[in-house]
Amino acid sequence: MNDRNWKDQKEFQAYFDQLHPVDIASELEDWPDEQIDAMCSYLNDEDLASVLDQSDDDERMEVVKHVHDDRLLSLFQWMPKDEIVDLMGNLPMDRKKRLLNRMKHDEQTIIRQLLQYPEESAGGIMTTDYIALRLDLKISDALQTIRDIGPKTEVIETLYVINAKRELIGTVDLRKLLAANKEAYISSIMEADAIYVYPEMDQEEVAKLVAKYDLKAIPVVNANKAILGIITVDDIIDVIIDEYDEDLLQMAGVSKEESIDTTLLESIQMRLPWLLINLATAFLASFIVKIFQTTIEQVVALSAVMTIVSGMGGNAGTQTMSILVRDLSHGDIKAKRVWQVLFKEIALGIIDGSSTGLVTAIIVYVMYHNVFLSLIVFLAMIGNLVVAGIFGLLIPVTISKLHADPAIASSIFLTTATDVLGFFIFLGLATLFLSHLM
Amino acid sequence: MNDRNWKDQKEFQAYFDQLHPVDIASELEDWPDEQIDAMCSYLNDEDLASVLDQSDDDERMEVVKHVHDDRLLSLFQWMPKDEIVDLMGNLPMDRKKRLLNRMKHDEQTIIRQLLQYPEESAGGIMTTDYIALRLDLKISDALQTIRDIGPKTEVIETLYVINAKRELIGTVDLRKLLAANKEAYISSIMEADAIYVYPEMDQEEVAKLVAKYDLKAIPVVNANKAILGIITVDDIIDVIIDEYDEDLLQMAGVSKEESIDTTLLESIQMRLPWLLINLATAFLASFIVKIFQTTIEQVVALSAVMTIVSGMGGNAGTQTMSILVRDLSHGDIKAKRVWQVLFKEIALGIIDGSSTGLVTAIIVYVMYHNVFLSLIVFLAMIGNLVVAGIFGLLIPVTISKLHADPAIASSIFLTTATDVLGFFIFLGLATLFLSHLM
Repeated sequence: MNDRNWKDQKEFQAYFDQLHPVDIASELEDWPDEQIDAMCSYLNDEDLASVLDQSDDDERMEVVKHVHDDRLLSLFQWMPKDEIVDLMGNLPMDRKKRLLNRMKHDEQTIIRQLLQYPEESAGGIMTTDYIALRLDLKISDALQTIRDIGPKTEVIETLYVINAKRELIGTVDLRKLLAANKEAYISSIMEADAIYVYPEMDQEEVAKLVAKYDLKAIPVVNANKAILGIITVDDIIDVIIDEYDEDLLQMAGVSKEESIDTTLLESIQMRLPWLLINLATAFLASFIVKIFQTTIEQVVALSAVMTIVSGMGGNAGTQTMSILVRDLSHGDIKAKRVWQVLFKEIALGIIDGSSTGLVTAIIVYVMYHNVFLSLIVFLAMIGNLVVAGIFGLLIPVTISKLHADPAIASSIFLTTATDVLGFFIFLGLATLFLSHLM
Repeated sequence: MNDRNWKDQKEFQAYFDQLHPVDIASELEDWPDEQIDAMCSYLNDEDLASVLDQSDDDERMEVVKHVHDDRLLSLFQWMPKDEIVDLMGNLPMDRKKRLLNRMKHDEQTIIRQLLQYPEESAGGIMTTDYIALRLDLKISDALQTIRDIGPKTEVIETLYVINAKRELIGTVDLRKLLAANKEAYISSIMEADAIYVYPEMDQEEVAKLVAKYDLKAIPVVNANKAILGIITVDDIIDVIIDEYDEDLLQMAGVSKEESIDTTLLESIQMRLPWLLINLATAFLASFIVKIFQTTIEQVVALSAVMTIVSGMGGNAGTQTMSILVRDLSHGDIKAKRVWQVLFKEIALGIIDGSSTGLVTAIIVYVMYHNVFLSLIVFLAMIGNLVVAGIFGLLIPVTISKLHADPAIASSIFLTTATDVLGFFIFLGLATLFLSHLM
């Protein structure tokens, strides 16, 4: 795709027309400067705005660098407010201020207000391009409003209904509106149960509501229930993908900001603190081994076998924990059920521990010809897999009770528990049976 | 919420009306049989269908058990086809057949056809409730069609345009249709670039398309480009959540089918195979330790320190791997960049390894008063964190090149590499410096 050269505007336009703006946007990051320059000069405002609209932050900044303030302000006419705010939020402070000052007064007010909300709040992802209909509007007038404003809004299938005080009081389905008697009033076809959010709400909570109630958009209101904006389902999909990526990465101790494009220095700053926390827990486990040093000194085979017991505990505990993290994030767990699940996990630890413990015991016997070593590894495996089940369950449940995200810190607590207790059970048993092992 | 008793139909209806059907659906699983019975007899078909529509598979089957075939067939009149098919797919074979045979002929044909598609394919999640407009239809007639069929369809904001051969040839935005001249034809306002999928496509691929192009629905067509159905964005959100959960769980070696409600026996069947695979890799690492048994015999402190080196390698490698898995799943990695990232990961391994290695060396010196042991742990930590960076990068990239999902098997290969090589580097260095350690 790279190093493409277009002879003239016509050739580029032909290339552009056969692709979707999204595809152009995703190609951009590999284009050399001259090519981006060419695109900016060849495309009209509407088309260039559609590329900006569909680009990621990085690609967007690439394009914006090639566009003067005048042009950028005309491009904004073709973009939804939430995308303009996203773009402005990433600009250098001086350019942001310059652009704001040159906007029309009412537009400036809206953008300034939207820029105030945290990027990951409902206010930060909402757009102000929506249709609100007055309760006492005639159907025929409402239809005219939709014809007039509709093309500038993001969703028309659900229309929001407000009263004289501009409070959100319900919704109207466009299907009903189209089928209704033209002389009737909006109030006659309204559903009086709009689901709404406040601008401070975290985007993850908003996404859960939209997913739960199968909404195509959700209105954002202020304390007086006046509509500030709406959040559309396509932005909600982006939120869901972002939040999941965040969970996945945070479980591994990485910031979601990091990608393969992150510089070396930034990667060090983001990863090293987590590694140092892990180091502290690794020393904890190492300390347990040190306590039993005299036992190991006498039966050195223990040092090879102990890592199997601790490792298997970590694996089994991660299985339990992952299911809990998933079910907790979907809100599928009732407090009274925890005891029931705990009992099951203990039973599972005993059964899975016996099975893997038996296999381990047999192989260990073949390797070391000591039936007591086999017996100890068998018992320790059961013990550590029960530990794994208990901690794999209780750690995420406890973190979630403390209103923190169980995805983040669970795994480090879990492996600390399975390492420390795994070594302790195995080496403890070995110390008890020491005379038989030697 | 449990053990609620409603005196009569009126009292239940009042309770029902103050809640959204989704909320009723999520309460259901805790209700005793009599309460579900009461709900089924109190609610009219439309309301009960809305509860079924919003329920999960388990809750849905609870309700269906309390409803006779006649009633169920009337409830189907109020449900979208994809939900009917989902529900039918979970019924016992004999009841499914009985219901199918009692359906009207045309409905039966549609449901039978939809039941044929795999549950996780485009065909398996599509609904047949959509609007297709003929190219040569007048705008006024199109509006009448929307008024007539609209209430029975899931999306009206985008309408699909077909030609005389019933091939999908484009889309019309309802906004344009509302604003257009009533005497004009659909062809004059059509966009000729509909994005569509085939019924065999995996639901994850469909979700990626919908997310990429910000669609509210995507049409499913057959080989002749005739529309078979559409998939709406709310079902796509469910797919995205499902697929992410699957990745998260598969990384931990658990089936996405497992939840805290899974029986003990099923949990064993699903988890034990993964634990046995892990056991094999644990023995591999244990075998390395056994090779160096005579070294450990002479310096038993090595057995406590070696677990720190292997554990830290696993943590650092998981950081790299998680970023790669995320970026690969978003398609953000170009082949030529792999070398560049590899170089960065090696540099990162050296720097993070030196930092954590230095801290470890100091603590180890305080504990064991042996400067050579500190030096060895310092070097081994750097070595193993470089190993972690290399494998954390190459394992997911290789798996992805083989067209498998890097989320599934990456972590087991990674920890095998960091354990085996971590022990090998540390104990190998210790064997070289053995005379200084004693």
